[in-house]
Amino acid sequence: MLAVSAVVLAACGNQNKMSSNSGSTKTELTGSNSSGNYQSVIQDGHYQTSKSSGVNEQQTSNQFNLEGFQHGLLDISKKEFDPSKYVFQEGQQISTEQTYNWLGRKTKDNPDGLNPEQPDKQVVPEYLQQIDEQDFLQQTGGKLQLKGMTIGLGLNSVYYYTKEKYGAQYSKKLSDDEIQAKGKEMVNEILKRMREKPETKDIPIVIALYKAAPDDSLVGGNFFAYSMNRAGSKSVDTWNKINQKNYVFPTAGNEKVPNANDESSFEQFKNKAQSYFPNLSGVTAQAQYTDGTLTGMHVNITTQFYSYTEINSFTQYLQTAAQKYLPRNVPIEITVGSTNGVQSYLNRDRDARKFTTHVFNNY
Amino acid sequence: MLAVSAVVLAACGNQNKMSSNSGSTKTELTGSNSSGNYQSVIQDGHYQTSKSSGVNEQQTSNQFNLEGFQHGLLDISKKEFDPSKYVFQEGQQISTEQTYNWLGRKTKDNPDGLNPEQPDKQVVPEYLQQIDEQDFLQQTGGKLQLKGMTIGLGLNSVYYYTKEKYGAQYSKKLSDDEIQAKGKEMVNEILKRMREKPETKDIPIVIALYKAAPDDSLVGGNFFAYSMNRAGSKSVDTWNKINQKNYVFPTAGNEKVPNANDESSFEQFKNKAQSYFPNLSGVTAQAQYTDGTLTGMHVNITTQFYSYTEINSFTQYLQTAAQKYLPRNVPIEITVGSTNGVQSYLNRDRDARKFTTHVFNNY
Repeated sequence: MLAVSAVVLAACGNQNKMSSNSGSTKTELTGSNSSGNYQSVIQDGHYQTSKSSGVNEQQTSNQFNLEGFQHGLLDISKKEFDPSKYVFQEGQQISTEQTYNWLGRKTKDNPDGLNPEQPDKQVVPEYLQQIDEQDFLQQTGGKLQLKGMTIGLGLNSVYYYTKEKYGAQYSKKLSDDEIQAKGKEMVNEILKRMREKPETKDIPIVIALYKAAPDDSLVGGNFFAYSMNRAGSKSVDTWNKINQKNYVFPTAGNEKVPNANDESSFEQFKNKAQSYFPNLSGVTAQAQYTDGTLTGMHVNITTQFYSYTEINSFTQYLQTAAQKYLPRNVPIEITVGSTNGVQSYLNRDRDARKFTTHVFNNY
Repeated sequence: MLAVSAVVLAACGNQNKMSSNSGSTKTELTGSNSSGNYQSVIQDGHYQTSKSSGVNEQQTSNQFNLEGFQHGLLDISKKEFDPSKYVFQEGQQISTEQTYNWLGRKTKDNPDGLNPEQPDKQVVPEYLQQIDEQDFLQQTGGKLQLKGMTIGLGLNSVYYYTKEKYGAQYSKKLSDDEIQAKGKEMVNEILKRMREKPETKDIPIVIALYKAAPDDSLVGGNFFAYSMNRAGSKSVDTWNKINQKNYVFPTAGNEKVPNANDESSFEQFKNKAQSYFPNLSGVTAQAQYTDGTLTGMHVNITTQFYSYTEINSFTQYLQTAAQKYLPRNVPIEITVGSTNGVQSYLNRDRDARKFTTHVFNNY
């Protein structure tokens, strides 16, 4: 059933030019690049970029929070808006200006600010760091129409501030309870605002809360809750908890991962890889846990510059070592790179038995 | 038959620790990462790096000449030393010091220099730029022994020189006839020298000649001839011509590629890709022709930084466009990257019908 729907959508994208609302623009779909992926909309050959994501790039200083946030939000969307039945579009409803205003503090000039007012000489944290919107469309009567939406709010786990302009930077850790309470307040406010717009008055809206990692973290933060708000509802009924957390291997200090076996597997792999060349700079990994179980791993291997044949042999060697040491039944991605860029990569999907490899090279 | 042999070698590498000549070192093999690839040797868990390749890195200013040279040499080796029957090892016979000496000019202090003497005040080109050696081993009586060797000589197509130390750089284009004649002379000299060493006295030695691209080229040079010298032979009997050349798309000025249809296909793909985002920086390709036919293409797409969902949709879109516009029955690799590194890549092997895709991301 799933496969059949996907084929129908793909056929639309490749063979028909669908007419859109305005009549004169040509709407196409990108072909799906693999099962479980959304197709997305192209208007007159141009992709509709997100109205909010540019703002986030300016506001977020940890790149991992930006990537992990978007990717994780798409995973949540997939739970509620089946990729074989909906077409994806970057957020078009919350404008760039609104994003700026909402991310700001509430002031006389900015009544829509979702971060709290700051009375003089007091340290009042900003909680909201980024907003992302994802739109989901369906074809009704020959037209692609907005039928669902997901909004993600990225919240600070540490508030960074200065006491005077260009002064020293201070930081204040925010408690999970505080982040959760403030985040849920904002979600109700945003839901209310979305219901005032005719386009989003009467569609299901998913809203998810993300706790951003500190600026110096080598891994992004995590989503901790989301709500599915049925068409028309103006406040959240039920929150679904998300129990997901990212770790860096090797762990620093006395940090504990949910399953110590995973880290010792990684350590064995790391030792094997590091003995291979006389001077290999680093082997680290980002590990994602969901409900206490490892659900994904990205291994990053930094080399000095090595020649094509050396990287080729090394990649074969890693394939054997990864197969032997790294945890099974988990999607794993391994990237080998130098300061000149990525040299090779290995990949094993959740259900695959073997790693596939690719060595990059030039003519 | 080929498959069976490969399995036998793989079994050795994974299950048995083979004893090597010296008795006390442990020799392992890297597992083969795909059919048609050599396995290579690991001694006591360490890879034997090449004795000559470090020297080449210092001498060669165009990175493409370095990568293309090594990769192309391996392709020539595969014609003469079947990957299912031989194990690969980085060159161990020509020492680092010898490489330095051979690459130098002939002088009183360096009688082994393969580049010509330079009398005062005369411009005498250096022809030889890089030397690479690849060793091929087989197991005989429980020991891995050197049973074949390939040597590549990289020759300048342009000689760069200064008239005084730190002075202005001048250049002199070298003719194909000149390069060929000098290269073939050097090959006979090298073959003679290899026959004086007990390890290489009596094995088949392949020697190949590469014409390096100029320093400012956006693509590497090409091999133009190789000889297979049977065990013991001290001078070249027969030269095999290699008709291979690399081009950059879009071509500059009035350069002509062997098949203009390939470039117009690329242009259509390029236009399609460039219309997608408001500001895509560049779409270029390296194209390799063998005997006048396109035998491989590496497409390089440079983006501003775009978000995960944007790159994900773009990659889907490229998959459809590449399938539609780019030449068929040719291995094609497409890399999408920003200044932050590679973001996604697409790949289609020679015999594959569809492109596979991968989007890189972080947690």
